[in-house]
Amino acid sequence: MNKTLGIRTGGRSARVQAAVHRAVRELLDEQPREALTVPQISQRAGVTPSTLYRRWGDLATLLGDVALEQMHPDALPEDTGSLRGDLLAWAQDYLDEVGSPLGRDLLRDVVSSQANDCPQRCAALLTQRLDRLLARAKRRGETPPAIEALVDAVVAPLVYRILFDPNPPTPEQIEYWLDACLAQAPRRRRRKSMTPAS
Amino acid sequence: MNKTLGIRTGGRSARVQAAVHRAVRELLDEQPREALTVPQISQRAGVTPSTLYRRWGDLATLLGDVALEQMHPDALPEDTGSLRGDLLAWAQDYLDEVGSPLGRDLLRDVVSSQANDCPQRCAALLTQRLDRLLARAKRRGETPPAIEALVDAVVAPLVYRILFDPNPPTPEQIEYWLDACLAQAPRRRRRKSMTPAS
Repeated sequence: MNKTLGIRTGGRSARVQAAVHRAVRELLDEQPREALTVPQISQRAGVTPSTLYRRWGDLATLLGDVALEQMHPDALPEDTGSLRGDLLAWAQDYLDEVGSPLGRDLLRDVVSSQANDCPQRCAALLTQRLDRLLARAKRRGETPPAIEALVDAVVAPLVYRILFDPNPPTPEQIEYWLDACLAQAPRRRRRKSMTPAS
Repeated sequence: MNKTLGIRTGGRSARVQAAVHRAVRELLDEQPREALTVPQISQRAGVTPSTLYRRWGDLATLLGDVALEQMHPDALPEDTGSLRGDLLAWAQDYLDEVGSPLGRDLLRDVVSSQANDCPQRCAALLTQRLDRLLARAKRRGETPPAIEALVDAVVAPLVYRILFDPNPPTPEQIEYWLDACLAQAPRRRRRKSMTPAS
């Protein structure tokens, strides 16, 4: 069985995962998240409850897994011609998805799911995606910031405000964080030893 | 009954809260968090389970409430003589408390507790405390950054890395974030309209 970050593929295992994820998404469309139960999901997906418990451990972890997949579709944002444009488009997409009340609940599921390193996988998927935008910028001849600097300066306040602030961040705030980060990029890269990758 | 952010005071209500919080803290010292149950807590605290449900709604919310109190003791860090020193001391305290495995679990409880606006109260308490450090700096004649800039540049990456990174942030990273924020302080304050308070 192939395993990639966050998404398992191959045979029966993949079919079970797809059916369960679909069942969760459908049920979330029909009723409040608090009302969701394991028996409901297993019935809708056509699998036994023990399959769910064996694979995900508990409901919070399953919800976190579904949330991860919804929050990280495979497609990269379109090439806008500049790193600044690409990152703004990415951040706006992220805010649209994760800044909504449902998205915020999904992100909370990810954070509170202790099993399977769900928060770490979420962060790793996000970093992978941003890395691809930075690589695209390099191919254009731009000098992008280090990925860690971008995470600290843009991703962290975006996620912090989604989780802890009554109001989601505004597009102006995101633009402000991004411009501050891009303005510092050359200096930051020379001082890379001061921002240890973790 | 007086109500302040995060802490209720007054009469029987306060006594019940103190007893329940103490019961949770004791039980957390004795056994893993996953093993904690409402009947256990109510027995230890000498209250009925329905008291707990009426007041906190569910176990996650109660754990979030206890976490909030543990994460936000009333004492301000000692005056180190400069805002930079005060903020470094605060951040190191915060990292010691919340960056530990137990602290990370407490923070996750806060994030996943939907009731009572627990995450917002957590952020508000943190902002109140930082505000007091900024006021102290002004009395010294320093020019502190805006609170929102400090939250975005230092608090957000600190909390993001505690929640999503396998390794907690290092003291060097915190120092780097803080120095970048302090270096920008005068410029940021002039451009305040670009960082709408939220």
